[in-house]
Formats: sequence, C-alpha cells, structure tokens
Amino acid sequence: MKTTLETIGIIHSPFKEKFGIPRQPGLVPEAVATLELLPPYDRPEAVAGLDGYSHVWIQFLFHRTMREQWQPTVRPPRLGGNRRVGVFASRSPFRPNPLGLSVMELRGVHCDRGVELELGGVDLLDGTPVVDIKPYVPYVDSIPDARGGFAPAAPERRLPVRFTPQAERQLRQRADGERVRELIRGLLEIDPRPAYRGEEEGERVFGMRLHDFDLRWRVMQGRVEVLELAAGY
Amino acid sequence: MKTTLETIGIIHSPFKEKFGIPRQPGLVPEAVATLELLPPYDRPEAVAGLDGYSHVWIQFLFHRTMREQWQPTVRPPRLGGNRRVGVFASRSPFRPNPLGLSVMELRGVHCDRGVELELGGVDLLDGTPVVDIKPYVPYVDSIPDARGGFAPAAPERRLPVRFTPQAERQLRQRADGERVRELIRGLLEIDPRPAYRGEEEGERVFGMRLHDFDLRWRVMQGRVEVLELAAGY
Repeated sequence: MKTTLETIGIIHSPFKEKFGIPRQPGLVPEAVATLELLPPYDRPEAVAGLDGYSHVWIQFLFHRTMREQWQPTVRPPRLGGNRRVGVFASRSPFRPNPLGLSVMELRGVHCDRGVELELGGVDLLDGTPVVDIKPYVPYVDSIPDARGGFAPAAPERRLPVRFTPQAERQLRQRADGERVRELIRGLLEIDPRPAYRGEEEGERVFGMRLHDFDLRWRVMQGRVEVLELAAGY
Repeated sequence: MKTTLETIGIIHSPFKEKFGIPRQPGLVPEAVATLELLPPYDRPEAVAGLDGYSHVWIQFLFHRTMREQWQPTVRPPRLGGNRRVGVFASRSPFRPNPLGLSVMELRGVHCDRGVELELGGVDLLDGTPVVDIKPYVPYVDSIPDARGGFAPAAPERRLPVRFTPQAERQLRQRADGERVRELIRGLLEIDPRPAYRGEEEGERVFGMRLHDFDLRWRVMQGRVEVLELAAGY
C-alpha cells in the first residue's frame, strides 16, 4: 500500500546545514524556529485549542537525506559511528520512509498573518517540510520509566564556551546579538563534533552555517573557543 | 511538496472495528497485537538492537478513515463530542495527512519466520498499515511536566466488570479463554461508550467485534455485565 503525503507547513530555523544541529530536540532550548502553515492549511481554526499544550509533536520529512535505496542498518553518531544497529532501532534520517518525529516546546501560536507556531528546542533544518502537528499528551506520551537501549540518557558533558574579542565584537554589531550568543553557547557546550572525535582536540577549526553567518570555533583543553561569525556564504 | 510512503508492515490485532478500541495506546496493557514486517523490510538486521528498548513509536496510516476532504476542526470524544477543536490540536484520525502515532510496549522481537514485533497496550485496528518504527528514547520523548490541554489525565473511572454464566461458559470453551477474559475486562472497565452517554444506562446492549466473536455487554448501575461472546460475523 502506498500513500501520498502533502506538506502542510515549512520550518524556518537558524540551521542551514546538517552539521551542528542538536541530535535530538530539547537539548538546546535556545534553538528557536517558526513553523509556517501553508495554504490551504493556514487557517486559525485548524490550531484552535493548541495553545493549551506546552509541547507538540512535529512530524516532518527528512528532505535532504532522501535516498533511492534503503539500508537495513545505520551507524548512529551516539555510538561513535562505528557500530551498526537496525534502522528501526534508530532515529536516523536514513529510513525506508523519510519520516521524522520531534517533540518541541510550543512557545506561541500566532494567527495575525496566516498561522505560525513558535517552537523551542528545535533540531530541524531550515526549510524542513512538515506533514503533521499533534499535541503532546503527557499521560499517554510520557513514559519516564521506559528502557532506553543505547541512548539511555542525555549527553551530560557540557563544555565551557568562551568568545574571542573578534566574536564579541561581531555579536555586539547585531540587533539579535544577545539571542545569538545564547544560541551559540547552547549549541557548542554539548559539543556537536562526532562522538568518535570526542577526545581529539587541537588546532582544527570547525565551522557551521547558522542564521546568515558561518560560525567558526575550536576546542582547546576541554573548552570551546568561538573564533568568529564569518560573513557571507 | 508531496511524498509517497510505502507500507513497511501490517498490524494483526484483536480489534476488528473502530468502536471499543481504547482511545489512546497504553490504556489497556492486555491489548496485545503483532506487527509483521512486509518484504523487503522483513530482515532481522533492520530491527537489530531494538530489543534493548521497552517501548516503540509506531507510525501508521488511518486506513479506514481516509477522506477526500480535510476539515479544520474536529469533535474529540473526550470532550463529549459536542465541542470543536482544531485538527492540529487533536489526535483525531481525520487529518490532512492520515498519519497516526502511538507509543506501545515492546513485548518481544521474533525473527524466526520473517520479522514480527509483539506489542502491548495497542489501540490499532486489525490490518493497520505501518510506515515507520522508532525506538522510544525516554530522555527525549518523556516530558512528564508537559501541560496537557483538554486531556490532562487518563480516564480514572474504572467500572467493575462481571461475566454472566453464559459468557463464562463461552470463555471456558476457548483455549485462549483466560487471556480473552483479561482483555475484555481491560477494555470494558474504562467504558468505551462515547463520553456524552457516560451517565446513561439501562437495557441497551452494546456490541463490538473482537477476535473472532461479537462481544455483547450492557452497563447497569455503574457495573458492566458481559452478556455473551456471540459467534460468527
């Protein structure tokens, strides 16, 4: 049996590429995005009552990782990228059907122009197509005692993050500098580098596209140093 | 943007019609079903490691309620069927995309002939097409403090359930009689009648198709009386 899904909305997020996105929702509360409903779904009645919920499920498409061929196993970054598990035992984007599922904080419902949801703790690429929104119903969805396989707990290591004078200067020049600083801190303190390089440090400069800039940083002696917010890409 | 999903598996459950199915997963742990993976997805590698998890997300299609036209609002049974909320503020099966989402207990992974998952707390119709399986990751998915809108808690009222001598006799004639008795008790003590009839009682006999029989019961003075397991439909 085959079914066709239609995109009902689109994500506008600061994440312009896959590297650096938190690997699960909720890890970085400062990661805020909006979900814009598309016509004909952009009707205020369709979200009536949603503001009574603190969290929502977003069902989306992994639009950048769709593949012709599915593979029965994947290598989760959480396991260092060198152990394989079944695709159905993972939340990997490389799946038979490219369906994603993330719970997010619902920070606001705006119906002044079309319909927009303001979401927190986002782990989605800019431009992600959304196929459904459902309320998070805690008495059904929350199972605190569930057994968690190979990912039993949130990553605990939080690295201290400092900004170079150059990065500080670039942040001060932005109207949204304070918010961007907190986002950068949230993203880098959980160390977006692949787990198998967790202990490797040194001169290597990492970069990720964020908002309208290219964020550059390195990790030295267990600390993150934010080098610059390079312009233009 | 449109995407085509393929069915990866099929649910075999005791529920042969919509009436009487628990309105959320987990409410009736005795409701057990199997999920059979379909070719080419029925490969043991695809579920390797899944048995480390106690619960799974099942993403499925509401195959019996697909409609040509979507409606921006729905009337949830939980609100007595007479108040409307936005379709995206509900878990109603009548949605723009017919995607369902249920968390279930993973009771077993069987790979002897094809691949079958044994699921508990099921709220799915027999024959439901499944489009994805994901592990339940408690540190991400479990948010006990989430605010729950119009469905803040599980239904608390549990009705006492008694079986007439005829129903007892019919249960004793079945090899699976004990299991079926516990399933019936679990299903009826949470009162599957629509909320707007909650206080109405009397002579009316209700029926639901379950396994290979037609279950008949009534509610008298706050007690459920199981009348018979009528044969053949």
